[in-house]
Amino acid sequence: MTRLQNDDFLRALRKEAVTRTPIWLMRQAGRYLPEYCASRKRAGDFLSLCKSPDLATEVTLQPLARYDLDAAILFSDILTVPDAMGLGLYFESGEGPRFLRPLREEADIAALTAPDPSVSLRYVMDAVSSTVRALNRSVPLIGFSGSPWTLACYMVEGGGSKDFRQIKTMLYARPDLLHRILAVTSEAVIAYLNAQIESGVQAVMLFDTWGGVLSTAAYREFSLAYMARILAALHRTWAGETIPAIVFTKGGGLWLEDVARSGCDGVGLDWSVDLGEARRRVGSHVALQGNLDPYVLFAPPDVIEREARATLASFYHSEIQGESGNSRTGLIFNLGHGISQFTPPEHVHALIETVHGYPLPE
Amino acid sequence: MTRLQNDDFLRALRKEAVTRTPIWLMRQAGRYLPEYCASRKRAGDFLSLCKSPDLATEVTLQPLARYDLDAAILFSDILTVPDAMGLGLYFESGEGPRFLRPLREEADIAALTAPDPSVSLRYVMDAVSSTVRALNRSVPLIGFSGSPWTLACYMVEGGGSKDFRQIKTMLYARPDLLHRILAVTSEAVIAYLNAQIESGVQAVMLFDTWGGVLSTAAYREFSLAYMARILAALHRTWAGETIPAIVFTKGGGLWLEDVARSGCDGVGLDWSVDLGEARRRVGSHVALQGNLDPYVLFAPPDVIEREARATLASFYHSEIQGESGNSRTGLIFNLGHGISQFTPPEHVHALIETVHGYPLPE
Repeated sequence: MTRLQNDDFLRALRKEAVTRTPIWLMRQAGRYLPEYCASRKRAGDFLSLCKSPDLATEVTLQPLARYDLDAAILFSDILTVPDAMGLGLYFESGEGPRFLRPLREEADIAALTAPDPSVSLRYVMDAVSSTVRALNRSVPLIGFSGSPWTLACYMVEGGGSKDFRQIKTMLYARPDLLHRILAVTSEAVIAYLNAQIESGVQAVMLFDTWGGVLSTAAYREFSLAYMARILAALHRTWAGETIPAIVFTKGGGLWLEDVARSGCDGVGLDWSVDLGEARRRVGSHVALQGNLDPYVLFAPPDVIEREARATLASFYHSEIQGESGNSRTGLIFNLGHGISQFTPPEHVHALIETVHGYPLPE
Repeated sequence: MTRLQNDDFLRALRKEAVTRTPIWLMRQAGRYLPEYCASRKRAGDFLSLCKSPDLATEVTLQPLARYDLDAAILFSDILTVPDAMGLGLYFESGEGPRFLRPLREEADIAALTAPDPSVSLRYVMDAVSSTVRALNRSVPLIGFSGSPWTLACYMVEGGGSKDFRQIKTMLYARPDLLHRILAVTSEAVIAYLNAQIESGVQAVMLFDTWGGVLSTAAYREFSLAYMARILAALHRTWAGETIPAIVFTKGGGLWLEDVARSGCDGVGLDWSVDLGEARRRVGSHVALQGNLDPYVLFAPPDVIEREARATLASFYHSEIQGESGNSRTGLIFNLGHGISQFTPPEHVHALIETVHGYPLPE
């Protein structure tokens, strides 16, 4: 394979020297872009957009055409996996995702099986192959999945939730049932991510959107343990390339040390954590990805520049005990959460220019 | 004044010896109790319940009649203060609190003033006096207020929010406006809590429900700094008694050291934090209050007992560096968040019995 034209994202994840701090944005192909809204309108609805490899490729490339981003991310939804498990995903307008058949009954949980991604998730693999071709070795493509805990939240609640009452009741009252769901879902995620790697993604990310609603003990047992199981079973090299993995637990700032020891190459951070403090806590054996508050992008460009520089300075000027301090790589700049649909698209330039222009320490 | 029959709550906050671990529950007077629902029905609506000193007294005492709790908490709403500032609080059924006049325009912000609690919040002080009389020195009464940041969230957003877009845009784009709101609101909270103390509450608590949505730097500047200002201005002794203060930032587990240095006597913890780890981090100069996941109460009594014992053990068996380790007080047991309206009321007994029965270390 020919080299990527821009591999700073992968190099930062491997703790190798970079030419500049790489940046990409969670949900960078999204509703804040008018061209995305146009594609989505043509698709008819969100799920049809995910299920059309051509349209998924088109929207994946849109932010890269507009901005100087250092990575693309597969356009898909985390709930494709439970959908393929037969739960019947649908979207109610303004209501978010829903499942026709939430997972509550013991018999349904016993009958749950991991789908073969080459069959029921073929459309995702087609989107990966198509996107890789279209990217033409410009920047890497990131594949992703929801974490087993996060997927289980939707599967048991039947959609989004404010209080996670159903799944937490199961967690405390019938942990055996929840462990069965998580084990099967982990198996599904392993097959799903390995199929994405085989189809051409150059890195993978686990989105643990709801890990932060757990207690420390429950997080370790019901979320992190299953992510570690997945990380141990992924193809970590493929076609002669190492495939790095990032774990992002939203609201998981208390558990960064645990996440860093889970077998991942990078730890995603939400905006609540101070980046330098995170680096001091986890050391430099893993990369960090994050973590500007997405709402900084609603301020004028001079504020965006100031806030981005403060985030960069916090990382690059943090001291790590027992280390020489000159290993100034390992940062992938991102927002601390998906970019808001209300973000003024022109504000994103100020952020990317600031990050790319920030001098790497000697 | 005659002594309280049960002052374990106050003693734990002052780090004095207790007869057993005190416990109370956030939102203990609430919808999970049928007798509360009956009182609320008689009141007509939630706000009328808050505004009737007699009914507020009645519902405050209901959980104490049912359970062996170690403290009562004033029945009120955190939004009474912005309501008294003229924003026009109302509740839409199933929609949560709303303000008729959200605070967005510069002129409205400039015109904001702190209300005199003896006038516009007289009904709260009447509820305090009435409740103190009804408690008849059995257990202490806790007064409370929302934190300035949390109140500002509702005031600027006009109600609850998923993303806090309006106030975060103000925070980043016009911090001067937000600081003005927070300064005036702090002044209002100081007067409000001091009036509660003068009316008879024996401890106060600041609920910083939305502090956890901020970055570390923004939390310090826009939430904690104003809580510290309030703590410095409160009556800390009144009628010969010390008045302890508790600060609870939901989602603030990253910042416990900062909260512990804010001038409070106790730090409230949500369920995400391990209690022993929290104690190791903040040392023993402040008490800790928390922190069982409220959804543990949905499990059978044996699970409730096991989880409560694990929480107690984590606190009492944590080692604090440089301390003798025999200062086994300073824990007030609570949930990590308000009790859910769907909690089976009979499950609460198992929790209280476990906490009270847990042997205090020698």
